[in-house]
Amino acid sequence: MTTDLTGVSAPSRVADLDEGISVEELQLAARNHGLPLEALRFDLTPPGLHYLLTHYDIPAVDPDAFRLVMDGVVDGPLSLDLDAIRSRPRRSTVVTLECAGNGRARLRPRPVSQPWLVEAVGTSRWTGTPLSPLLREAGLPDDAVDVVFTGADHGIERGVEQDYQRSLPVREAMREEVLLAYEMNGAPIPPQHGYPLRLVVPGWYGMAQVKWLTRIDVVADPFDGFQMRAYCLRQQPEDPGTPLTRIEPRALLVPPGFPDFMSRTRVLRAGPTIVEGRAWSGWAPVDAVDVSVDQGQTWSSATLEPAPDRWGWARWSWTWEATVGNYTMSARASDASGRSQPVDAPWNRGGFANNLVQRVAVTVISLSDLAGIEEP
Amino acid sequence: MTTDLTGVSAPSRVADLDEGISVEELQLAARNHGLPLEALRFDLTPPGLHYLLTHYDIPAVDPDAFRLVMDGVVDGPLSLDLDAIRSRPRRSTVVTLECAGNGRARLRPRPVSQPWLVEAVGTSRWTGTPLSPLLREAGLPDDAVDVVFTGADHGIERGVEQDYQRSLPVREAMREEVLLAYEMNGAPIPPQHGYPLRLVVPGWYGMAQVKWLTRIDVVADPFDGFQMRAYCLRQQPEDPGTPLTRIEPRALLVPPGFPDFMSRTRVLRAGPTIVEGRAWSGWAPVDAVDVSVDQGQTWSSATLEPAPDRWGWARWSWTWEATVGNYTMSARASDASGRSQPVDAPWNRGGFANNLVQRVAVTVISLSDLAGIEEP
Repeated sequence: MTTDLTGVSAPSRVADLDEGISVEELQLAARNHGLPLEALRFDLTPPGLHYLLTHYDIPAVDPDAFRLVMDGVVDGPLSLDLDAIRSRPRRSTVVTLECAGNGRARLRPRPVSQPWLVEAVGTSRWTGTPLSPLLREAGLPDDAVDVVFTGADHGIERGVEQDYQRSLPVREAMREEVLLAYEMNGAPIPPQHGYPLRLVVPGWYGMAQVKWLTRIDVVADPFDGFQMRAYCLRQQPEDPGTPLTRIEPRALLVPPGFPDFMSRTRVLRAGPTIVEGRAWSGWAPVDAVDVSVDQGQTWSSATLEPAPDRWGWARWSWTWEATVGNYTMSARASDASGRSQPVDAPWNRGGFANNLVQRVAVTVISLSDLAGIEEP
Repeated sequence: MTTDLTGVSAPSRVADLDEGISVEELQLAARNHGLPLEALRFDLTPPGLHYLLTHYDIPAVDPDAFRLVMDGVVDGPLSLDLDAIRSRPRRSTVVTLECAGNGRARLRPRPVSQPWLVEAVGTSRWTGTPLSPLLREAGLPDDAVDVVFTGADHGIERGVEQDYQRSLPVREAMREEVLLAYEMNGAPIPPQHGYPLRLVVPGWYGMAQVKWLTRIDVVADPFDGFQMRAYCLRQQPEDPGTPLTRIEPRALLVPPGFPDFMSRTRVLRAGPTIVEGRAWSGWAPVDAVDVSVDQGQTWSSATLEPAPDRWGWARWSWTWEATVGNYTMSARASDASGRSQPVDAPWNRGGFANNLVQRVAVTVISLSDLAGIEEP
């Protein structure tokens, strides 16, 4: 029997130039969420504020029945329950994770998918056991090419039914910082972030951080699964594409003052204001953050604090003598590899890796402006 | 000095009939979030999955400097620190909270605000101390009319600068179930849900559940603050409006099968399927849930389990002999007060209390359909 799935799973598309956000994009935006930007003030993002993107459903994984299977071309397959994983060497790393699609909804024309503006980021302390000793134990043959990670999340995407699967080249999988994580900020991982076990690959975009991990397969041929083809930079659907890997540099500022409910424009009273934020890059340490209040015409150097961990964001701050007027604030990070943030975003069809500088509208008012708080 | 705030804080508006979701609505949808519907499977919603709506910013409240002030026309004002509040009688209640704007984005024309589809709900165990003994201690005079609750969240809305403020009539504030809550699901309330102290008014929509509570003022005149006027049912902006209070009945189902990433349409393999969900009402206990798979042409009775707590949702289930085809699934709750869910939603300008029945598109396929999972 054949079922017509045309209405269920359509090809990817790009919105018309004058097309508002669609209900299907809104469905994704209502269930996934970004970091409210004021939460950049936390060194570690509290649960529920860290960005979240789930391709399908959050699966229900029974921790008692759980087994992680390691198989493929390894010398000896392994099957480990949670106690076995937890009894192995324990390691914690602070890691900033960012969705590869962050910034997608700011591109023109807009690729139709999860419509992130700028907020798909978060920083946690991930605790687990390093992957590389486990791979060595299973035994890696000389012809091993990729390591394939399979999650318990199941769905259909562009017509292909699948468990979520991503691979890493063997050399990346063997990096000592790559973790099989079972704790987030010192507690069991919440259901939506991969309970009971997920992969953490510091420096890479979120698509590599396979949640609800159930299988690890070492393969002797390059893995070409759906998600490997999906997360590529392309101009046209038929382009072979450049695979996404590490996180491009970005700085975000804690929007100063207070917001209007609907426009989210900031209102700030005149006077000296400490502007602060965070900056990160998966390629190399951030070595400079600049701030502009005039739409990028002029830039000032912010004070950059050392990041507490190579893979976590760094705090920066800058003192602004704010005078009455309308401003557009931006922050721009550069890293030690020479990468920086563009002020005009290059377009790509998937809407990936758009690290265009943030723009925050701020209206500075005098101390006596506005009606003040309503008193009971 | 006068600053032009026209661009900062515009009047409320209704979208054109053919207008897609705007970037300003998306800004709200990206920072606030609903309950991913598969999380209806949890009796208590885990942190980070409970719906969240913050009008302004999540404020940073210093727990050591925190004082709750009770003032107004009481006989003796009180100022309590967190230890004083925690040392008072302790009470826990399971409460389902829902945003008054849930369902707004399904109205035509669409009121422009936080664009909820159907997912702005969650259920937690809230623990704190009952409010009524505190009010009695402070001393309520005979002419007390309203009790005004002030949060630490500060912003501007439709041109009015304000701390978030809502009142309850004295008789509602004195209900024994009304709590000053400091724990959510057995842990300190997360920052985004009102840390360190919030009001919990079982049965009422979310706008009454003042977060980051700092002041309680008893007043002798009806309180007419901004949020009291905002949360009203109106056809025209100049209508006096009917204030929103209690939650209208609603049932939601856990979408069966697995989703397509983009359309969120469900794909299900044919055969007997247990369909389950939750139902609640702030007016009276839910006494029936009906399920339809044919766009509401015919309805079947679901099995309703007793709610574990009057103010928490009830679980329901129904077995479906699913055969190949395309379906629209709905669930409809009725309560003991005679209220039920409409199949055509009445419109109102704020987009409030739209408890239109949920519609879930499901494509049932045969066991052999689709290409199957890609194997590494």
